[in-house]
Amino acid sequence: MSTSIIRGKYVICEAAVDGQSSRVITDGAVFQRDGVIEAVGAYDEIKAAHQADEELGGSGYVVMPGLVNAHHHGRGVSTFQNGCIDDCLETWILAGWGRRPYDHYLMTLFTSIQMIESGTTTTMYNHAQTPATGLADDVSEVLRGFADAGMRTAFSVYFRERNRVVYQDDEQFISGLPGDLAGSLRQFLAAVNLSEEEYFSVFQGLHQKYLNDSDSRVTVLLSPSNVQWVSDEFLLRTKDEATRTDAAIHIHLVESLYQKEYGLRTWGHTPVEHLNNLGFLGPEVSCAHSVWLTDQDIDILAQTGATVCHNPSSNLRLKNGIAPVNALLGKGVNVALGTDSTALNDDDDMIQEMRLAAKLHRQPRMDMPALNSHQALRLATTNAARPTGLQDKIGVLEPGRFADLVLLDLDALTDPYSDSGIDVVDMLLYRGKASHIDMVMIQGEVVVKNGTFIKMDKEAVLREIKEQFARPMEGRAIEAKKLAQGLTPFVEEFYKDWGKSEITPHYGFNSRV
Amino acid sequence: MSTSIIRGKYVICEAAVDGQSSRVITDGAVFQRDGVIEAVGAYDEIKAAHQADEELGGSGYVVMPGLVNAHHHGRGVSTFQNGCIDDCLETWILAGWGRRPYDHYLMTLFTSIQMIESGTTTTMYNHAQTPATGLADDVSEVLRGFADAGMRTAFSVYFRERNRVVYQDDEQFISGLPGDLAGSLRQFLAAVNLSEEEYFSVFQGLHQKYLNDSDSRVTVLLSPSNVQWVSDEFLLRTKDEATRTDAAIHIHLVESLYQKEYGLRTWGHTPVEHLNNLGFLGPEVSCAHSVWLTDQDIDILAQTGATVCHNPSSNLRLKNGIAPVNALLGKGVNVALGTDSTALNDDDDMIQEMRLAAKLHRQPRMDMPALNSHQALRLATTNAARPTGLQDKIGVLEPGRFADLVLLDLDALTDPYSDSGIDVVDMLLYRGKASHIDMVMIQGEVVVKNGTFIKMDKEAVLREIKEQFARPMEGRAIEAKKLAQGLTPFVEEFYKDWGKSEITPHYGFNSRV
Repeated sequence: MSTSIIRGKYVICEAAVDGQSSRVITDGAVFQRDGVIEAVGAYDEIKAAHQADEELGGSGYVVMPGLVNAHHHGRGVSTFQNGCIDDCLETWILAGWGRRPYDHYLMTLFTSIQMIESGTTTTMYNHAQTPATGLADDVSEVLRGFADAGMRTAFSVYFRERNRVVYQDDEQFISGLPGDLAGSLRQFLAAVNLSEEEYFSVFQGLHQKYLNDSDSRVTVLLSPSNVQWVSDEFLLRTKDEATRTDAAIHIHLVESLYQKEYGLRTWGHTPVEHLNNLGFLGPEVSCAHSVWLTDQDIDILAQTGATVCHNPSSNLRLKNGIAPVNALLGKGVNVALGTDSTALNDDDDMIQEMRLAAKLHRQPRMDMPALNSHQALRLATTNAARPTGLQDKIGVLEPGRFADLVLLDLDALTDPYSDSGIDVVDMLLYRGKASHIDMVMIQGEVVVKNGTFIKMDKEAVLREIKEQFARPMEGRAIEAKKLAQGLTPFVEEFYKDWGKSEITPHYGFNSRV
Repeated sequence: MSTSIIRGKYVICEAAVDGQSSRVITDGAVFQRDGVIEAVGAYDEIKAAHQADEELGGSGYVVMPGLVNAHHHGRGVSTFQNGCIDDCLETWILAGWGRRPYDHYLMTLFTSIQMIESGTTTTMYNHAQTPATGLADDVSEVLRGFADAGMRTAFSVYFRERNRVVYQDDEQFISGLPGDLAGSLRQFLAAVNLSEEEYFSVFQGLHQKYLNDSDSRVTVLLSPSNVQWVSDEFLLRTKDEATRTDAAIHIHLVESLYQKEYGLRTWGHTPVEHLNNLGFLGPEVSCAHSVWLTDQDIDILAQTGATVCHNPSSNLRLKNGIAPVNALLGKGVNVALGTDSTALNDDDDMIQEMRLAAKLHRQPRMDMPALNSHQALRLATTNAARPTGLQDKIGVLEPGRFADLVLLDLDALTDPYSDSGIDVVDMLLYRGKASHIDMVMIQGEVVVKNGTFIKMDKEAVLREIKEQFARPMEGRAIEAKKLAQGLTPFVEEFYKDWGKSEITPHYGFNSRV
């Protein structure tokens, strides 16, 4: 049995309870026992009512719920650091094939440490199969990494079975390639091939395992990668499996203009309409990116109760645009926030990501909406908790929820001056930095102390990564890189006439006339 | 006489020389004597050819030109920290009236230290008159602050004579207000009143003074605040004065949708067309913000050789939108970068501002433009140098220019891994942080060492600011705050029907259909 009191000048309990302000206790505290919050209230009352093993924080701190990164693919050493410069999503994915193979355990540790030190306590991790290694082994290494780092994880494996080079049948596309390129591509695709049976068997095994393990910090989700990448049969099987197992579903959706156009060319309507026609959408479904949503798509998402996982940095970096978050929120869609392992500063910092979201969704003109600080924080807490399957367990500081929380140094945050009228959530959203974080607790366990991750030897993890990455690049990765470079002009040629229809933006950020 | 060699694994001499890549010397060095660069080249050759008092940097560093903040209003303790939350420009300016009066010298020191520590060596400072203090005294305190901090400064006073509450004649607007509000407003406006004669006399005095002072780091510019805020006569007198004295001109321009609409309502054409009709525009003119530019406006700016000072953070924060930077660059307009004292993280960090610019101007679709890292760095160096009047003296590392430069720690920048194929300018733009800065030199003088400002006692400056800001708010500021709050509903009512015409965006970031 272990208990603690976490005290703050401000305890941010729940973000944007009414859209315009957050539930904040001044001179407050949280009391937790064995990782579960038992009480939240005025510090004096908490102190009088509860005997605790230790007291953390104090009157010079801010307590907030741990942040939830609602869309992430792991890694840590970023795609950019691996030599892939930002590009259009469709060519950038190809370039990523040439990434150096990595140790899943170590990289998961590293990405977790980086995220935890910047205030994230739960991550929606979506696993992409890497060439020629066994899925079950990779997945077990990833999960061991999250467990050792202490990160709470909503875990899914991303399934992709078709249209894997461009949004067209693989064999049809390959048939138009020169012979040597076609051969290398066939070989590469075979190596990342994953059968539907293996996918579902891994899901079922993990889902059962973690359902029965009440000590674990893992929930397991299903994940068809995207509408153009799986068959309708796969989508329907996923929906059935989700219903049968009460699991949530995570999918990528209209990330790029080209993905929307794939729908228009294939079905004569948008991918969202297609999913709706299949009966796929529902409150258990979360959709990453969702940039190219029409007004009608937004209505459908609102009606079905699906979540949108917004990735503002990634959407800009990969030339996908800006998701219509204000329109989504206006219709009551649950919008969550995530970095997609492609954050503004290439470091998975969710405080910076919240800030970017808060600045980006400020539509010109007084009577047009603008995301406020409370809403931005809600995107990364309450709203992001929903698609993880832990909507009643994380994201808010209240009795019965896990003690996943972050302490920020108020002096650092307000240095050298802060007007007494400034709301603490505004202060966090305007000026908060990862470097202001003093302590991070996950399920009652202190994992960051004095701003540094303490659960493991961080320097040793970094040393080991440096050693592994200092080794010469493997032949297979060099081949894949060459393959991607060879394919790029053909991919660009393929999309040459796509995405040219008229655009009527949700956001009027400037005007030609 | 003082000389130094500054060595780097990479010396970034000039950004985006051909639009796609930068002039970088690997294993290079800069040799400077008394603040002027005498040679740039391979380290071995520089070392063999020059005897220096000291050698800085080394093979674990990157050398780059000092950054130029092309639009800034000083302060340091931000408008937000003073209690004014971001809003539409037109109401946010009002709220700013209620800011606590401050010590111009101290605040200039603080803002300079903050900027210098994040790599800025020159700032385009635009001074707004504060209530009931003498302009000449304020200005002299500001310039003393910049001088003591060592910051190179392109200095101007912002002149505003009409339409100061809304874009309508002050007396006409006041006549529609309740009596007590009208009275307080008249009093407030009288206190910030500045006569044209005083303005030009201060300009002439300063311009002459710094022209004759070869040791100073100051150039003096003219600055009509914006087309709706000054008369045509004032604009023409400014143009004459600029021609007579060979001084540059800095102006705000179509920052908001409402400012564009003021032009359409007043003259039947845009503010840019109006300035062009007056013969005001030219290569000596730089225009801050310039968000609401039409295609025709962009052509005019290109033809006249004017500069646009782009402020991406401020434009988002104050609900003004996104300036069409790609279209401007496509037409050959000189685009510079600045923070407007309203940066993304509220800290005037130009590295972060370059990064935001680089991410924001990535238009969806493969065949649409995207600002690359080299161009983003050029916006903050070569292009930003032009409007300062020092276009041949700063922004590039080459013989004859001032030794204004920054050393970054390459290990920190590339930690824990960086693919050997990554360009150093990409590395800086994707992952560089102020915390990677080791040394900053202005005119040969080391002002930052080991990441910390050393020219003055920074802690003492901060202590003094804290003491001053801990004092109770003055009655005058409290009155001004009340006045602004009282006026806000009337201002909102005034603009109720403005800005409702159809928008055809330059950037298609999303689409409703």
